[in-house]
Amino acid sequence: MTNNTKAYAATSPDSGLAPFSFDRRALRPDDVAIEIDYCGVCHTDIHFVQNDWGMTQYPVVPGHEIIGRVTAVGPEVSGFQVGDVVGVGCMVDSCRSCAACEAGLEQYCLEGSTLTYNGEDRHDQSITYCGYSSRVVVSDRFVVNVPDKLDPSAAAPLLCAGITTYSPLRHYGVSKGHKVGVVGMGGLGHMGVKFARALGAEVTLFTRSEAKVREARKQGADHVVVSTDESQMEAAAESLDFILDTVPVQHDLNPYLNCLKYDGTHIIVGLLDPIEPPVEAGALVFKRRVLAGSLIGGMPET
Amino acid sequence: MTNNTKAYAATSPDSGLAPFSFDRRALRPDDVAIEIDYCGVCHTDIHFVQNDWGMTQYPVVPGHEIIGRVTAVGPEVSGFQVGDVVGVGCMVDSCRSCAACEAGLEQYCLEGSTLTYNGEDRHDQSITYCGYSSRVVVSDRFVVNVPDKLDPSAAAPLLCAGITTYSPLRHYGVSKGHKVGVVGMGGLGHMGVKFARALGAEVTLFTRSEAKVREARKQGADHVVVSTDESQMEAAAESLDFILDTVPVQHDLNPYLNCLKYDGTHIIVGLLDPIEPPVEAGALVFKRRVLAGSLIGGMPET
Repeated sequence: MTNNTKAYAATSPDSGLAPFSFDRRALRPDDVAIEIDYCGVCHTDIHFVQNDWGMTQYPVVPGHEIIGRVTAVGPEVSGFQVGDVVGVGCMVDSCRSCAACEAGLEQYCLEGSTLTYNGEDRHDQSITYCGYSSRVVVSDRFVVNVPDKLDPSAAAPLLCAGITTYSPLRHYGVSKGHKVGVVGMGGLGHMGVKFARALGAEVTLFTRSEAKVREARKQGADHVVVSTDESQMEAAAESLDFILDTVPVQHDLNPYLNCLKYDGTHIIVGLLDPIEPPVEAGALVFKRRVLAGSLIGGMPET
Repeated sequence: MTNNTKAYAATSPDSGLAPFSFDRRALRPDDVAIEIDYCGVCHTDIHFVQNDWGMTQYPVVPGHEIIGRVTAVGPEVSGFQVGDVVGVGCMVDSCRSCAACEAGLEQYCLEGSTLTYNGEDRHDQSITYCGYSSRVVVSDRFVVNVPDKLDPSAAAPLLCAGITTYSPLRHYGVSKGHKVGVVGMGGLGHMGVKFARALGAEVTLFTRSEAKVREARKQGADHVVVSTDESQMEAAAESLDFILDTVPVQHDLNPYLNCLKYDGTHIIVGLLDPIEPPVEAGALVFKRRVLAGSLIGGMPET
């Protein structure tokens, strides 16, 4: 599966480590070649390295929160120039012609999008390798410009954690006047609090850990609820319009559903497993509540 | 709890049975007194009689799909006259001042709506008794006119099964061009197929029973999928915009979620129990699908 790639080692000047890398492919007309400067570490990377989801194809080179500089462009590329600071997120290709792709929602491509790593290239069927590396070549549709005012070293997490939380908040129209809960204060939770605030919402952060209360407030949370404290959870009952649930492991959704007003929406962005303990259908029916999922974001949004 | 009511028996001329009844209360200014002609039998009635949900207060007089004739009105009633054919559904009162009531969504009243039977009257705290009876008195806000062109004997189920299926189809904007699945061919399923068709959708009825295929087509279903046949379910994968799930007992939602397109919505209107087997969160996340609940409908809609 790796016959189209050739491994080489490049010494990282900062870490002294020798990052594993693969030669970039020859440029296709719409390709952008990128020298990688920074790459975020997403929990998904760890899942893939450990084969937690049983679908890893080794060797795997993770990393899908990539910031780098353009070193070359294919002849059909008009949006990028050599030297531009750019980013690459979780996808590097999709069918581009289905209803989802035409709507700019490549993450829901009906044929399946090509993942940044451990995906299969649509042209040569090679396996994709990505950010924990020195260089990468990506079709221009899946490359984004990084504005000058963004610190490149801080921008990387926007490409997965950022868009994963921003996309559903926008999709569901979160704005001033809304009350939004964010569950979990990890990488996604940090982003969720900031985006919800930036969109004008009043934000409640739910955390199991008293130790995170201060951090949550520092990130802009208006309220913090320690979710292991039943009295705090009861006090939050039927108070929220939206909940952005970033927790990636099984947890009881029912106490959070109870915090939604009627017509409220609970959006799962972290969990992929069976929902256990089971959701009470009555909690949805009696209040016309919605339990939704959302996956990263499309390229126009990113 | 029943000191404001007095039981009496009235002989039913049709059935020969002696229906249990309670004297109507003295008319309040906004009250409508109704002589009951027809009453649907809803599965909820059976649940209440059997105390399946552990909340029945005996004696219980079920029936919340009521059609009758107005025999008297209070001095403030302007919308009804003696002799009018009218209906009463699942609610007979609500707080009338919360956000939900002001939006005409009395079923989601923040203080809780007053159920047609086994509810507690907001004024005198008596327990409500309803349709399997001879007479009832209901505040005019919760009485609906039955148009002449509707056969009164057939109209009763519209007041629960009808509005329960109509309301979510309208709320989610089902219209021409949408593909709608209806799960279950009971009382609600019949209504769901008819309403979805009437709204212009292409309708697929899911049933476990080969025996119901013909009935489903007779009711207007464009397609029928026997849900116990895996190949039929696979053929329906990612084909639907909405699913209206009328099944009132635990069942596996995952094969139905798989039949939704990305951004598709599965609406539960029958089930109130914990959702088991558990829903796969990934089925929601990877396709931005929605799992929603819906409860009867508000009075303007009814």
